[in-house]
Amino acid sequence: MSTLARAYVAHSPTEPLRPGTIERREPGDFEVRIAIRFTGICHSDIHTARGDWASARYPVVVGHEIAGVVEAVGAKVTRHVVGDRVGVGCFVDSCRECANCLAGEEQYCLAGSVSTYNSVGRDGLPTAGGYSTSIVVDENYVLKIPEGISLEAAAPLLCAGITMYSPLRNWDAGPGKRVAIIGMGGLGHMGVKIAAAMGAEVTVLSQSLKKEEDARRLGAGHYYATSDPATFDALNGHFDLIINTVSANIDVDQYLSLLALGGTLVLVGLPTEPLSQRAWSLASFRRNLAGSKMGGIRQTQEMLDFCAAKGLGAEVEVIPAHEINEAFGRVVASDVRYRFVIDAGTF
Amino acid sequence: MSTLARAYVAHSPTEPLRPGTIERREPGDFEVRIAIRFTGICHSDIHTARGDWASARYPVVVGHEIAGVVEAVGAKVTRHVVGDRVGVGCFVDSCRECANCLAGEEQYCLAGSVSTYNSVGRDGLPTAGGYSTSIVVDENYVLKIPEGISLEAAAPLLCAGITMYSPLRNWDAGPGKRVAIIGMGGLGHMGVKIAAAMGAEVTVLSQSLKKEEDARRLGAGHYYATSDPATFDALNGHFDLIINTVSANIDVDQYLSLLALGGTLVLVGLPTEPLSQRAWSLASFRRNLAGSKMGGIRQTQEMLDFCAAKGLGAEVEVIPAHEINEAFGRVVASDVRYRFVIDAGTF
Repeated sequence: MSTLARAYVAHSPTEPLRPGTIERREPGDFEVRIAIRFTGICHSDIHTARGDWASARYPVVVGHEIAGVVEAVGAKVTRHVVGDRVGVGCFVDSCRECANCLAGEEQYCLAGSVSTYNSVGRDGLPTAGGYSTSIVVDENYVLKIPEGISLEAAAPLLCAGITMYSPLRNWDAGPGKRVAIIGMGGLGHMGVKIAAAMGAEVTVLSQSLKKEEDARRLGAGHYYATSDPATFDALNGHFDLIINTVSANIDVDQYLSLLALGGTLVLVGLPTEPLSQRAWSLASFRRNLAGSKMGGIRQTQEMLDFCAAKGLGAEVEVIPAHEINEAFGRVVASDVRYRFVIDAGTF
Repeated sequence: MSTLARAYVAHSPTEPLRPGTIERREPGDFEVRIAIRFTGICHSDIHTARGDWASARYPVVVGHEIAGVVEAVGAKVTRHVVGDRVGVGCFVDSCRECANCLAGEEQYCLAGSVSTYNSVGRDGLPTAGGYSTSIVVDENYVLKIPEGISLEAAAPLLCAGITMYSPLRNWDAGPGKRVAIIGMGGLGHMGVKIAAAMGAEVTVLSQSLKKEEDARRLGAGHYYATSDPATFDALNGHFDLIINTVSANIDVDQYLSLLALGGTLVLVGLPTEPLSQRAWSLASFRRNLAGSKMGGIRQTQEMLDFCAAKGLGAEVEVIPAHEINEAFGRVVASDVRYRFVIDAGTF
């Protein structure tokens, strides 16, 4: 027997999201139904709802930063019980058989992981995300949210948090490492917190100095404006790791010049236009240009446990559902410190 | 008291190299004079001699794949004695104080290492390379050539060999790793030999199938023509490491698509035009694009010892000095299997 959920629905690229209802299937043997409490607003939600990526299947319910409480479990579920505080991130299924799934890197599933929204699930039906009051997900794709992180501060960790944690961990951010975060938004502010908690020396590279005070409070030791050309002279050859959270096109050569021998510039903000750089910018000091996408289930759980142990959560502004469309406009204008989170009790 | 050396000299971008003499300084306290026996012809020699890089100081004597025998040592030299079989590669000095020099990565010296030719040494005089009968070099920048490699097969190891060995070692080529080498020339053929000797599964990606038999004899398990579009379908997501030896511009997205999760495409052939790729090609499977330049003195010695232990040397065609200009033309036309080496007894 399916359940009705209240939701905010995008019906076309040009209309605002509107309240509505969607059907959630009864949990299968290995599935849980989650009563959603909070859902973060990720820039990807906006791109999808507005059809920027030319792949939206309307009507679509977006949202992949989901925090809630288990309210029903299938007969064979072993990992979660009713009442557990849990989260769901950017994907809700994957093939489970390819080399990448077996390595615990389901986000890189060779068959393509099933996105939390705007994808097609095993049941052949479109997936619908977290701008709703409940969701049904296979237990293996549901994360535990440890006590010690509030659900509203935890929600953005499921996308923004893991998107930053994964490259910081994979490229060994930690004591003695100089890490720069380009962009001080939803992703960037979590990068600062996590990198600092890992023990790295953290520098923020932001267009202006407007968010310097915040960044220092969150753990940054240094802050530079990229609009000032002197920044690139001062920091030449300085960093072991730079993570770019900005989706606008960047001057890759300029940022590569900030890397020390063997350093890596990781793209997590993904411009749609091709990026270019001189081969010499890479070869001159054995530099690397890389990209990274979310993290696997195992690493996402590790990230949540790490954040709980370190007392980290996202900096959030909780809004009621009827402010979603306004919030979209503010996200696009970078007018949020640092993540909107929707109170699912208001759908 | 200085020594006269016979040499082949480039006097301008447009003239052929001509025989002449140059002066070599008396070895200082920490220097050795080497009687050159063989010098490899590297494509860089041609670029410099012909002014392609717009930085040649004429007259210039090129050559940085030098193998010979120590014939004189300064009063305080401890590392070499007269009669030692030795080699000199792409640089003859560096600052010795920067972080990269202290890490044994002198090729990335932050003050700029002193190139074997067309650079300026500590004495304020232009450096002159291996197209000559002798050279004077600080003992710390002179490599030992182990017994078991002939001097003519060893000469190309000093540039082509280390340029391939260094990325293969740094990115962990070895058993269980799938390594592709793009281009089957002077660099590429050494890449095949060294990667195979390290235990990796080696594939050559070459424009045509003309050199397939050679590649298999040198250790390649697989060989594909990049002119055949089916190659890119067949090898999608296949490699852990790809090393590009080709200096012409390549379709970076296409080669990135051949990398498995976390794989790396390393550029050692350096196109002068900027390279471009989509951010998604990197992020979709956490792929890396990197560059690498020669290797440090310690790693170059390690490479020579490795090659001696494995019985590896370059495949060479030994020529007399008066054929240098003809050989330049054949290198540019890729008509050499796989490295010309000049017999220094004929200068």
